[in-house]
Amino acid sequence: MYYAGIDLGGTNIAVGIVDENGKMLESASVPTRSGRHFSEIVKDMADVVKQLADKVGISVNDITAAGIGCPGSIDSANGVCEYSNNLRMRHVDLAGEFKKHIDIPVYVENDANAAALGEYEMNAKGSKSFVFITLGTGVGGGVIINGEIFRGFNGVGAELGHTVIKMDGEPCTCGRKGCWEAYASVTALIRQTKEAMEKHKDSLMHEIAEKEGKVSGHTAFLAAKQGDKYGVEVVSKYFEYIAEGITNLVNIFQPEKLVIGGSISKEGDYLLKPVNEFVQKNDYNRYMPKAKIEIAQLFGDAGIIGAAIAARNATK
Amino acid sequence: MYYAGIDLGGTNIAVGIVDENGKMLESASVPTRSGRHFSEIVKDMADVVKQLADKVGISVNDITAAGIGCPGSIDSANGVCEYSNNLRMRHVDLAGEFKKHIDIPVYVENDANAAALGEYEMNAKGSKSFVFITLGTGVGGGVIINGEIFRGFNGVGAELGHTVIKMDGEPCTCGRKGCWEAYASVTALIRQTKEAMEKHKDSLMHEIAEKEGKVSGHTAFLAAKQGDKYGVEVVSKYFEYIAEGITNLVNIFQPEKLVIGGSISKEGDYLLKPVNEFVQKNDYNRYMPKAKIEIAQLFGDAGIIGAAIAARNATK
Repeated sequence: MYYAGIDLGGTNIAVGIVDENGKMLESASVPTRSGRHFSEIVKDMADVVKQLADKVGISVNDITAAGIGCPGSIDSANGVCEYSNNLRMRHVDLAGEFKKHIDIPVYVENDANAAALGEYEMNAKGSKSFVFITLGTGVGGGVIINGEIFRGFNGVGAELGHTVIKMDGEPCTCGRKGCWEAYASVTALIRQTKEAMEKHKDSLMHEIAEKEGKVSGHTAFLAAKQGDKYGVEVVSKYFEYIAEGITNLVNIFQPEKLVIGGSISKEGDYLLKPVNEFVQKNDYNRYMPKAKIEIAQLFGDAGIIGAAIAARNATK
Repeated sequence: MYYAGIDLGGTNIAVGIVDENGKMLESASVPTRSGRHFSEIVKDMADVVKQLADKVGISVNDITAAGIGCPGSIDSANGVCEYSNNLRMRHVDLAGEFKKHIDIPVYVENDANAAALGEYEMNAKGSKSFVFITLGTGVGGGVIINGEIFRGFNGVGAELGHTVIKMDGEPCTCGRKGCWEAYASVTALIRQTKEAMEKHKDSLMHEIAEKEGKVSGHTAFLAAKQGDKYGVEVVSKYFEYIAEGITNLVNIFQPEKLVIGGSISKEGDYLLKPVNEFVQKNDYNRYMPKAKIEIAQLFGDAGIIGAAIAARNATK
């Protein structure tokens, strides 16, 4: 059995053909060029699916179903993107539009939920309670309970990044102040790095940023690894922000596994070790088995594979 | 069908005989006198159940099952209280001990989970996602997903009060700083009231506290309702603390209903209106149906009824 998985991002449309076990057979990506009319974006998705089907050596009619992971508020039951700030979409029938090009069942899922499902299926299958977080431009999350994506009653739950961890703190894109996203995203890390650089003109971070041509999510990490004490300060505090939010999620969900994805997760053990120590020390549970915290394994493919698995599960 | 519901609190053991629809037939309570050996506490529970059975006019053998709601970390599957700070219990087989007195099936549940189940069954039945919070000495919570108590993989999830809303803030009994409980509990309100009284010697709160003989959870409310501006300040800020935490929970769970219980919920609309306005304004969901926020209806009986319903559901 074959499934198409589509991870519709603000920058790229990543597409894959995936088998019934979640194995990626072929993948490719094209720029989203968001701001275009949605019909053009969906046409590009379908074109890439057709090309990949050719590469795999199958017809598009051999594809059982397609899954689309899309950022924003998704009405999964109807295949509609209700609202996506990144993609400038409002009430767009993605499933219906896709079927104009390839007439197979199409399922639309929030992108973080799809990625969560991908990580769950491939690395945590059977966990009664599973949490996935993604630390990138924003902080996204997905929760899998008893094998199913948890969406809340209206489909738009699990906005884990939009939980205040510091009342009256930094402004968040959502309008509140002090959201976890405003402290634990890469965007926040860049702000924290710039603030530290402003204060400490002798930090190695200046040299690194100059070489890179900009301050990025790597600047403080690179400096810290070379022993720059201001880089260490930035990174240590950033780990604390991440860990404080994760501890909250552990106290709420007591997940068998909590998996950290997104671009920052590439830091691997350098990130995981201090975060894990903080959570194990601070979580509320002292007497029962503890949540396991891990780095994502599928990384960039989680969205594609998860979307394909969502389509598989819906057509089973 | 008859069920016994037992709400084991730090101060009182509240017991009821409840029918299969959750209707309370008879209830009574005795002091817990916590610190006693658990066997004495459990004997008292069983004695009250026997007395109430007499009152209802049934034999204890007519009781299908008993449910015990107990604060702390509960191993429901085995009927064991793993740890309760309030009751000074560590790995106590409550179910086994109860059966020595009345040999019927016994189910043990975290007290906030039991109360959540009670409110859900009587007032929110059918909600796909339901959250109950209790604002009392601490801040407790229970989550019902698809009609079942959500416990996490290890049974001790939904510790909603132990989520940091103000990093590096007030110390919490759990060891962290800035937990929601440290801002939204009655204990926190009393601290906030005392701090305001210290600053404002001309506040009406002094007079009210003197009449009452102490500063309580009512002091600021009474002053505010009489127009004392410092009382209004305390209460307004307290509402904000409550609402900030509820907004977090709405963004996470998108519950069809979120119900506020605990002693502060007696304030009714005076509490609900500003909290609701804050949440509706600040939650992340702008395009899908909104979570309904309500005051608990069962109030003090939620724990008894919920424990009985847990027993009913487990024996169905």
